[in-house]
Amino acid sequence: MYLPTPVLSSDLEKKHGLPPGWSEKFNGVEVRHHVSNENVADLGAEAAQQALDNAGLQLNDIDVFITAGASTDQIIPSQAAMTLNKMKGGHTANCEAFHINITCLSFMTAFKLAADMIQFGEINRILIVAAEISSLGIGPENWETLTLFGDGAAAVIVEKSKNHRSGLIKYKHQVFTEGLHAAEIPGGHVNKWIRDYPYDPSIHHFQMDSRQLLRLTLKFLPDFMNEFFESLGTSWAETDWTVPHQASKTGLNMIPKIAKVNPEKVVNILKTTGNCIAASIPMGIHHLISQDKLKSGETLFMCGTSAGFSIGSLLYRHD
Amino acid sequence: MYLPTPVLSSDLEKKHGLPPGWSEKFNGVEVRHHVSNENVADLGAEAAQQALDNAGLQLNDIDVFITAGASTDQIIPSQAAMTLNKMKGGHTANCEAFHINITCLSFMTAFKLAADMIQFGEINRILIVAAEISSLGIGPENWETLTLFGDGAAAVIVEKSKNHRSGLIKYKHQVFTEGLHAAEIPGGHVNKWIRDYPYDPSIHHFQMDSRQLLRLTLKFLPDFMNEFFESLGTSWAETDWTVPHQASKTGLNMIPKIAKVNPEKVVNILKTTGNCIAASIPMGIHHLISQDKLKSGETLFMCGTSAGFSIGSLLYRHD
Repeated sequence: MYLPTPVLSSDLEKKHGLPPGWSEKFNGVEVRHHVSNENVADLGAEAAQQALDNAGLQLNDIDVFITAGASTDQIIPSQAAMTLNKMKGGHTANCEAFHINITCLSFMTAFKLAADMIQFGEINRILIVAAEISSLGIGPENWETLTLFGDGAAAVIVEKSKNHRSGLIKYKHQVFTEGLHAAEIPGGHVNKWIRDYPYDPSIHHFQMDSRQLLRLTLKFLPDFMNEFFESLGTSWAETDWTVPHQASKTGLNMIPKIAKVNPEKVVNILKTTGNCIAASIPMGIHHLISQDKLKSGETLFMCGTSAGFSIGSLLYRHD
Repeated sequence: MYLPTPVLSSDLEKKHGLPPGWSEKFNGVEVRHHVSNENVADLGAEAAQQALDNAGLQLNDIDVFITAGASTDQIIPSQAAMTLNKMKGGHTANCEAFHINITCLSFMTAFKLAADMIQFGEINRILIVAAEISSLGIGPENWETLTLFGDGAAAVIVEKSKNHRSGLIKYKHQVFTEGLHAAEIPGGHVNKWIRDYPYDPSIHHFQMDSRQLLRLTLKFLPDFMNEFFESLGTSWAETDWTVPHQASKTGLNMIPKIAKVNPEKVVNILKTTGNCIAASIPMGIHHLISQDKLKSGETLFMCGTSAGFSIGSLLYRHD
């Protein structure tokens, strides 16, 4: 996991004239991190290198390199090439590479694809890097997004296991397009091309209708989760750990109520990282693993919502 | 396959003051297509609906919906949600969805992932949509890119087969980051954010160093392909059909020399579509299938290069 420069809520509030304490009270965020000169590749390469170092591996040991998320350094080439280029050994790497984007759920989907790929003979190790820079797409015109979102990266290595009980149990993802515009950056690409739409925070900053997102979550999430666990003959409460996307204080507070799980078994790092888009879930996994909480044989449940509007969930058993 | 309004080389040459015949002589392109009001989702949804209609299927029959390519309508949400929203039945679809980007090789990588996913019980059909709009990122300042690139979309449905001889034989992809800047759009995202870099064709239009791309291709592609076929104990010449990315006239002319294959077995649609980025390969497949050329039991070899710089190849046996 890699985080750039910390930005305290008190400093952000002072700088933009927000009432002192607004950020923590409204969003539950005390500190998030903002890049100064780093780009997405820098953040991603830092986290990925740490993951390799922790595992005692080198880039040459990796068969597939996946970058996951909404943030990219350039329109072309793919972020996978941009991040690989910043890695130690990136110039002579011989892994496959691609970028995947389903916004906040990009890491979870990459993890599912990695679990599929690892079933086949030729693939032994997959490195997934989620790096996000949200600070360029937020501003003082919206206190909620300004204080909620942060920059950062986390990386995970998925490896073949000899333990046949470990691995992916179930993955589910669904898009509810009635929420297509509930969370968006309308400008910058084909719909409002840069030539015709010069920089304007109202189209190039992240626009979020949190009431609409909450309404969609309440409408679709309970049935989605019931179906997920019923099909497995188990329940959310029986899982060992929940790593939810760190969407918002309201969203995180809803989980113990819907899931009837012990809040201590739900990772909540919102206070110290903010919402880091696709990087939040692997940061949550890093949190569990670095604190030696996740034990072999335990189940880990990832879940969250994303722009689109979509819901995703993934259950796996840790080796 | 779906193509927007045709733009004849003669008209393009007249409009921008190029010598008559320049486009066909230099790039081998007689006609490419440009959008007027359509966006990426419109092109993609048209091609995807045609694929469903041809297969006698509906969106509800699809388990996974993948959009693949470099072009997107907005920075957020993911193009997968944007395109799904334009589909008949998109509002009530219950498929998984994500977007994948490794520029020109995005479709090939999506096809590989689909082949992996389809091995598992719960996934029966995957719809892959490659839709690209290159016309916004090119201009008269560069005759080569202006005349070479086109807009368009193609879609493919990958389905479980009962024939155990059909399916993916081998996939290989590799990034050579020494070519990172040989093909790029430097602006628009984190590296040159819109706030600080207003519209400027020199950073928001596609920049291509074709000499460098040719050098990289000659340096890396022959060994890459030799290894690919040697590991299978076969040769390029023994494959039934080659569908190369329609990168350029020079690139396409190289194939029969390197591969020693019959040129009639290599799909070449550059003249009538131009280079449509990730949509070119599925357009080539559409061309073979719609002309009843690809027979059951035959092998199809996809190959190409992409920005990054990367090389990819995929061999499968058609059901």
